[in-house]
Amino acid sequence: VELNFASDNSSGVHPSVLDALHNANSGYTLGYGLDLWTLQAHQVLRKQFGADAEIYLVWSGTAANVLGIKGVLMPHQSILCAETAHLYHDETGAPEAHLHAKLVPIQTHDGKLTVEMLEPHLVFRGDIHRTDPRVVSIAQSTEYGTLYTPAEIRTLADWCHAHRMLLHLDGARIANAAAALDVPLRAITTDAGVDLLSFGGTKNGLMGAEAVLYLRPGLADHFAYLHKQGMQLSSKMRYLSAQILAYFADDLWLHNARHANAMTARLAQAVGDVPGVSLTQAVAANAIFATLPPDAITALNRHAIFHTWDPLRHEVRWMTSWQTTPAEVDAFAAKIREIVPQFAA
Amino acid sequence: VELNFASDNSSGVHPSVLDALHNANSGYTLGYGLDLWTLQAHQVLRKQFGADAEIYLVWSGTAANVLGIKGVLMPHQSILCAETAHLYHDETGAPEAHLHAKLVPIQTHDGKLTVEMLEPHLVFRGDIHRTDPRVVSIAQSTEYGTLYTPAEIRTLADWCHAHRMLLHLDGARIANAAAALDVPLRAITTDAGVDLLSFGGTKNGLMGAEAVLYLRPGLADHFAYLHKQGMQLSSKMRYLSAQILAYFADDLWLHNARHANAMTARLAQAVGDVPGVSLTQAVAANAIFATLPPDAITALNRHAIFHTWDPLRHEVRWMTSWQTTPAEVDAFAAKIREIVPQFAA
Amino acid sequence: VELNFASDNSSGVHPSVLDALHNANSGYTLGYGLDLWTLQAHQVLRKQFGADAEIYLVWSGTAANVLGIKGVLMPHQSILCAETAHLYHDETGAPEAHLHAKLVPIQTHDGKLTVEMLEPHLVFRGDIHRTDPRVVSIAQSTEYGTLYTPAEIRTLADWCHAHRMLLHLDGARIANAAAALDVPLRAITTDAGVDLLSFGGTKNGLMGAEAVLYLRPGLADHFAYLHKQGMQLSSKMRYLSAQILAYFADDLWLHNARHANAMTARLAQAVGDVPGVSLTQAVAANAIFATLPPDAITALNRHAIFHTWDPLRHEVRWMTSWQTTPAEVDAFAAKIREIVPQFAA
Amino acid sequence: VELNFASDNSSGVHPSVLDALHNANSGYTLGYGLDLWTLQAHQVLRKQFGADAEIYLVWSGTAANVLGIKGVLMPHQSILCAETAHLYHDETGAPEAHLHAKLVPIQTHDGKLTVEMLEPHLVFRGDIHRTDPRVVSIAQSTEYGTLYTPAEIRTLADWCHAHRMLLHLDGARIANAAAALDVPLRAITTDAGVDLLSFGGTKNGLMGAEAVLYLRPGLADHFAYLHKQGMQLSSKMRYLSAQILAYFADDLWLHNARHANAMTARLAQAVGDVPGVSLTQAVAANAIFATLPPDAITALNRHAIFHTWDPLRHEVRWMTSWQTTPAEVDAFAAKIREIVPQFAA
Repeated sequence: VELNFASDNSSGVHPSVLDALHNANSGYTLGYGLDLWTLQAHQVLRKQFGADAEIYLVWSGTAANVLGIKGVLMPHQSILCAETAHLYHDETGAPEAHLHAKLVPIQTHDGKLTVEMLEPHLVFRGDIHRTDPRVVSIAQSTEYGTLYTPAEIRTLADWCHAHRMLLHLDGARIANAAAALDVPLRAITTDAGVDLLSFGGTKNGLMGAEAVLYLRPGLADHFAYLHKQGMQLSSKMRYLSAQILAYFADDLWLHNARHANAMTARLAQAVGDVPGVSLTQAVAANAIFATLPPDAITALNRHAIFHTWDPLRHEVRWMTSWQTTPAEVDAFAAKIREIVPQFAA
Repeated sequence: VELNFASDNSSGVHPSVLDALHNANSGYTLGYGLDLWTLQAHQVLRKQFGADAEIYLVWSGTAANVLGIKGVLMPHQSILCAETAHLYHDETGAPEAHLHAKLVPIQTHDGKLTVEMLEPHLVFRGDIHRTDPRVVSIAQSTEYGTLYTPAEIRTLADWCHAHRMLLHLDGARIANAAAALDVPLRAITTDAGVDLLSFGGTKNGLMGAEAVLYLRPGLADHFAYLHKQGMQLSSKMRYLSAQILAYFADDLWLHNARHANAMTARLAQAVGDVPGVSLTQAVAANAIFATLPPDAITALNRHAIFHTWDPLRHEVRWMTSWQTTPAEVDAFAAKIREIVPQFAA
Repeated sequence: VELNFASDNSSGVHPSVLDALHNANSGYTLGYGLDLWTLQAHQVLRKQFGADAEIYLVWSGTAANVLGIKGVLMPHQSILCAETAHLYHDETGAPEAHLHAKLVPIQTHDGKLTVEMLEPHLVFRGDIHRTDPRVVSIAQSTEYGTLYTPAEIRTLADWCHAHRMLLHLDGARIANAAAALDVPLRAITTDAGVDLLSFGGTKNGLMGAEAVLYLRPGLADHFAYLHKQGMQLSSKMRYLSAQILAYFADDLWLHNARHANAMTARLAQAVGDVPGVSLTQAVAANAIFATLPPDAITALNRHAIFHTWDPLRHEVRWMTSWQTTPAEVDAFAAKIREIVPQFAA
Repeated sequence: VELNFASDNSSGVHPSVLDALHNANSGYTLGYGLDLWTLQAHQVLRKQFGADAEIYLVWSGTAANVLGIKGVLMPHQSILCAETAHLYHDETGAPEAHLHAKLVPIQTHDGKLTVEMLEPHLVFRGDIHRTDPRVVSIAQSTEYGTLYTPAEIRTLADWCHAHRMLLHLDGARIANAAAALDVPLRAITTDAGVDLLSFGGTKNGLMGAEAVLYLRPGLADHFAYLHKQGMQLSSKMRYLSAQILAYFADDLWLHNARHANAMTARLAQAVGDVPGVSLTQAVAANAIFATLPPDAITALNRHAIFHTWDPLRHEVRWMTSWQTTPAEVDAFAAKIREIVPQFAA
C-alpha cells in the first residue's frame, strides 16, 4: 500500500472529471471563456452561490485569493487574517507582490478569527500614517482543519460591513467544510454575508480549477481586466469549465468531500489514543494536527509521506482526500500505533 | 462544416494529450512539481533545448512571458519590443503590472526587430533619468505570422550580449516557426543565442501547458520563488508535465505544427489572388493577414469566425491549427472567393 | 559671466522664498501638514485654482505627476501622452514603477496632443485583453516649450469627459505658460476642464515645492493615504507651505515667469537668424530648441552649459529662468553668433 | 510657554541650517546632485561612515528606509523587524507598496530585536512557498527610545551575515543614539557591521534632509536609478546638501542630540516618581513612554501637545528636541505633577 497523507493535492483527478474533459474536447470554440462550457459552469456556480455571483475561473488557489482581493483593495488598505492563513505565509509573499498592500497577521489558537481579535486593529482607523483595514480574510475549513459555524461567519460579516469592510473566504477546502457541517455551500458563504469567495476544487478531485466569486453586486466592476492581467484567463477555458460541470454533476463535490472527511475521522479514531500522539486541534474536516516525539516523525516518515507542519513544535499534519482508501487509513494507523509509542516518554 | 479561423487556441486538445492525462492519473505524488512526470518533462525539454536549460512549467503564455522576464529584470530597466508584440498590447498591461517596468514599443512593418531599429534606443544609456534597456523581446513566429531566420536571431542575440542585454523569445508559436523553417527547436533558440524562452504548447494541441526556459546558466537563481509567487506553480503539476511528455512523444509538436502551417499555405494559395483580398504580410507559418473591403468582413463573418486584427485598416487575421481540416480550408476559401469580390472596388 | 542655459532648475531660490523660510521658522507646530502655514498655502492655491481644489504639497515634480495619477488610475488602465512627455521618458520609469500601468506614447511634432491623435487609441476600448485608457496627460508648457491655448485644453478635456477619461496637466512650468498666454492660472486648468494638475514651483524660483491638485470633487478620496505612502508627506511641511505663500505673495510666480520668458525671447531674437541655428519649435515660453552642426555644439559647450536634447538630430535646448540676466543672454548670444556659423555648411 | 512634546519633528530648523541654505543660494549649478555642495556633503558623510559608503540624499525618512531596502531586496524576500518598527506600521504600507515584499513583525517588549527572536524565522528557509528572509531592520534609537549597544548591533550583524542576510539600521534618530551612548556615529553603524543605513537629520534640526547609505561595496549598483525612480532625486539638490554640511560643521548634530537627550532626562527625573505615571520603557534617548490614567491624558493635553502612543494601554509618548528649553520641560513637569496624581487610583 502506498501511504501518502501529505496533502489532498497529492491525489489524482476523479475519473468523472477526466471524462468531462474528453466530452469537452469537440469542435472549435472561442477562447478566453467565451464558450458554452463556461457559460454553463457560471450557471451551475450561480445556482450554488446565488444569482448575483460574478464568477471568474482561474487555475490557481493562490490566484483566486490574491486576484480576488486585488479587485477590491487599494494599496493603502490592509487585510486582517490569521497568522496561520495560507494567504499570509504559504504563498511566497504573493499577496504583497500583487496587492502591494499589508497583511496584518493575528494570533489564534485554532486558525479562527473572532470579532474580539479584530476590534483592536481599528484603533488607528483613519490615521493616514497607518494602513486602512479593508478586508478580513478567513479560511473555511481553516488551515488547521477547523470550522466556522454559519453563525460565526455571519457575525464576522456583520462586523465587517458595520465597519465598511469586506469579508473574504478562502474556500480552498470549502467542500470539506460544507460536508462536515452538513450545510449547503451558500450557507457558509452568500447566506452568511461573505462578500468574496475563493472557490476551490483542485484539492477535492479536480485537475486544476478554482474560481473567484464576488457574491454581492458592485464588487467586480474591473475584474474582467484583472483576470487577464493577472495571468489567469485561460485561452482554452472550456477545460476548466468542464471540470466545474463535472464537480457539480451528481454532487461529486459532496461525495468526494464526505469521503475525505470520513477517512480523517477514521484515522483520528484509530490513533487518537496512541501514546505520544497529541492532537493539537479538534478534528473536523479532512486533516489531523498532532505533535509527536521528534524521532517518531522520522521513523514514521519511512513508511508514509506526510508534512511536518511546525518543526519547532514537532507538529505534523495528516491529510486525507477523495482518493484515500480505508485500507490506506488502516495501514497508516497501524504504523502509527506501532511506531510512535516506542518514542513516547 | 464549422468554420473557425479565429485562433489556434479555438481548437481542442489532441487525443494523445488526453490519453497522457489519463495515464498520469494514477496514485499519489508530491505536489508542486516534485513528481516523476515533471522530472521527465524537464528531461525531455532539456533534450530539445540543451542541458543547461532551467525549466519551469506554467499554465499561461502571458505568465511565461511576464514571469520569465521578471526573473531577469529590475524595475528601472526596460524591454525593447515590436509595437505589435503580444507582450506589449495584448496582455492588458500584465508586463507593467508585474514587472513595474517600461516596455519600449518599436515600429516595424512585419513584426520583426532589427539591430538598426534597436541601436537608437541606447543613445541615452547610462542616463539615470531614463530606463536602462535590459531585454530585447522578439516573437517567433511573430504576431504577424512572419519568421526570423536562425541567423537573424543570432545577430540580435550577439548585439544584445555585446550591450549587456538579454534576448527573450516569445515562443507561443515556436513549433510553427521551427516547422516552417524546417529546423530543430534549438536552432532558433539555444543555438541562436536566445537567453530566455517562453515555450508554448497550448496553441498547438495541448490543453494548457507552457514553460519558462532559461537557456543559459545563472539566470534562474531566484525563479523557483517567483514561480510560486507568480501564481503559476501548479499543485497538481503532473497534469502539465504529462502534456509536455505527450507533446514530444512521436514528434507530436512537429506534426501538429506542420499540419497547421500546411493548412494556412493551402488557404493562402486558394485566396491569394481573390480581388479585394490584399495580403499584408508574407505567409510563412499558420496565419494570413489581409485587408478586405469593410463590408466584405461583415459578410464573411456570417459564415466563418475570424478576427479583425486592425479595425482602422480593415485588416483581418485567418489562422489555422493542428485541428483544421483541408475540407474546412476549402469551404472557407470558397466563401472568400464567393463573397469578397462582391465588395471589391 | 557664468553661462548656464541648461535648465530652469540650475538656478537658485528667489530671495523672497528664503525670507519666507526664515519667517516660518518660529516655534512648534504639528508635523505632516497640520500647521497654519499649510492651511494658508491651501487657501492661497484654492484662490488660484478654485474652491473645489484638493491640494497636497510634495517635494518632487515626478511625484506630483506619478502620485497624482495614482490616485485615479487602476493598473489595468492606461495613460495616453506625447512620446516626448517628461512623464513618459524622463522619470526612469517611475510611472510604471508606481502605477504599474501602461503609458501609451503618441508621436507629435511639437509635444502637443490633439483629439485626432487620441481617437485611434479608443478603437479597442472594452477589450479586456488591452488596457483601458483612463487618463490623458499633457504638459503646459510642453517639454518643447510650446503652449496649448485655453481652447485647445478645453477641447481635450471635453473629449476626455465624453469618454469617461480624465485630463491631467503636468504644470512643472505652468507659470511660464500662464505668463506667456497672459491668462490666469485657472484659465488653463480648472476653467479649461483639467481634472488633475501637477503644480510646479521649483523651476520658477522655489527651493523645492510642488503640489498635486485635484480640481474636481470626488477624485481625491484616498489621496491623503497615498501622500504618505508615496513618501512625499513632509514631516516639516511648513517649509514647503511657506514657499508656496511666498510664491503667490506679490505675484512672485508671475514676475519670475515673465522674466524667464522675456530672457528666452531676447535670446531667440538675437540668434534666430544665425547661420547654422535652425529652430525646431516655435519659441513661446522659456526654452529654445534648435539643431546645430554637431561640432558647433561641442565648441559652444566650452563657453556655456546647456543640454543636447536629441543627440541623433543634434538638437539642443537653451533654457532661461527667473535668475537669467540680460547680460548673460547677450553674452551667450554673442558666443552663438561667433561660434556656430564657423561650423555651418 | 508653548508646550509641545509631540515629536522632535514639531520643532523648527536650527539657525545654522538656515544660514547654510542662504550661503548655498549663489549662482547656477547642475541639477540632480551634480553640484559642489553635494560632492562635499558626500565627503563629509564618508568621513563619518567610512570611505566605502555610497550616499544618496533624500527628502524623506520613509523614503530612506523604503528605497534603501529596495536596492537590496527582491519581492520574494522578506524583512524581519520589530512589530513596533516605524517601517512596519507608521508608513501607511509604504514598504509593501514599493518593495512588494513581506515584512515579518516580531514581538518585543522594548523595540529591540535579538538573535533569539530571529532564529525561528529561518526554520522554513529555502522553502519556495515561503518568503526568503533577506534583511533584518532595526532602529537606533528605537521607536521606544531604547538603545542597542555597539556590541548588540555587531551580534545582529554577524548573525545576518552568517545567514546571507543584511542588516538595515533606521537611523531617523541616530544622532540621539550616538549622543546617548557617547560613541561616534560609525561605532553603531559601519564599525558594528551595519550594511545599510537610513541616516536622519530632519528630526534633529534640519529642514528636511535624510540619506540612504550603503556602507559596504557592492550593494548600491543600481541605486542611482532607484533614487530618481523613487521620486527622491532633488533637482535642486544643493539645498539638501547644504543642510548636511551645516549639520556636521562644528558638530551641530551632536550638540543638538545631546541637548534633546538632556531635556528628556530632565523631564524623566522630574516626573518619574509622580503617582499615576508609570514609565513603560527605560529612558535612554529623547523620548519617555509612560502609561497614565486615561482621564489624566485628556486633562494634560489641555496644557501640552503630545501623542497617545497606544490608546488601548493609555500609553503616551513625551518627546524632546534640539529646540526644547529647560523652561518648557519644567513647565510641563509642573503640569504633570499637578494633574496626573488627581486621576491616580
